[in-house]
Amino acid sequence: MNKIITIGRELGRELGKRLAQQLGFAYYDNEIITGIAQKTELAESYVKQIVERSPVASFPITIGHSFYPHMSSNVDQATNIYVEQSNIITEMADKSDCVIVGRCADYILRDRKPFRIFVFASPEYRIERCRQKVKENENLTDKQIWKNIRKVDRHRARYYMFYTGRKWGEKSNYDICINTTNASIKSVSEALVKMLRPED
Amino acid sequence: MNKIITIGRELGRELGKRLAQQLGFAYYDNEIITGIAQKTELAESYVKQIVERSPVASFPITIGHSFYPHMSSNVDQATNIYVEQSNIITEMADKSDCVIVGRCADYILRDRKPFRIFVFASPEYRIERCRQKVKENENLTDKQIWKNIRKVDRHRARYYMFYTGRKWGEKSNYDICINTTNASIKSVSEALVKMLRPED
Repeated sequence: MNKIITIGRELGRELGKRLAQQLGFAYYDNEIITGIAQKTELAESYVKQIVERSPVASFPITIGHSFYPHMSSNVDQATNIYVEQSNIITEMADKSDCVIVGRCADYILRDRKPFRIFVFASPEYRIERCRQKVKENENLTDKQIWKNIRKVDRHRARYYMFYTGRKWGEKSNYDICINTTNASIKSVSEALVKMLRPED
Repeated sequence: MNKIITIGRELGRELGKRLAQQLGFAYYDNEIITGIAQKTELAESYVKQIVERSPVASFPITIGHSFYPHMSSNVDQATNIYVEQSNIITEMADKSDCVIVGRCADYILRDRKPFRIFVFASPEYRIERCRQKVKENENLTDKQIWKNIRKVDRHRARYYMFYTGRKWGEKSNYDICINTTNASIKSVSEALVKMLRPED
């Protein structure tokens, strides 16, 4: 069976890419969104919007009632996209050893016993990083940036809870949770390679 | 400044010992209890009992009221022991690079930026380990053993909360949280050495 590494994250792409490179594994992140868009013939931007939100958060309690028929079809679409996502992730895991970032891959592939990483950092570190990475954030206050970060976290947590029934970022759902506030991604990645391939 | 590693734990002694050995650091665990007993001239078993319990859990709300004078003095003793513990841990950290297991060392030494590890595992793994390690557990049911484990966890969580104001095991208080259910302590230890001494 192929070796699978999943990365749940507040932040995790840089670590994921580095790990994949060092281990010679495939790396999947936005490729999943592109795959869904291709299979469903929906625009990538639309798929991205759907998978970044929890269906339950987007619709009122009356969901499914006949006087809101269009909402029911929206939920169906979110669910269809999740099913497609599960298929694509499973295909990727079938193909080769791989690192998969986000997208409930840890849950979808749970029977294959992936090595499950969660990456997090302090608010101060995340705000600083966000300011450096995204040009539009240059003129925002720390408070405004933190509000945006929290919003994305909330969406991810709801999405994860909706499809897995689990709490996003709860340490018992992972093999290792890493705080990158004071650590270099390079040294974390090398340590993980050592753990995953002790013979090297 | 000396390098300090603290290990909070559901389980963590084996990892702590191995890490200390591989890094050439001093290792402190029960030595702290022995140190307190020597300094306070109290029996080790008594000190152990005090430091495994939260003072707040042991005494009713009337603490400090004049009609319960003996309780107030018991709380004083617990606090005195905590102060002595803080002194001893600080002395140990002054002496050399070291690994310290438990005892709120991560909090007591927070200004020295220790590398803070938390070690945990699944209930099934912990029950099995507990059965193997403690002879008296041989004839207990899984449920009985788990009840005992939970009791110790609860004491540690209350103790930690009482003296630090923080939630024990909450991942944001640590640099790394490691689930040892599916990992060998040897490979975890080697990975951590790689992370802490990337030049090796």
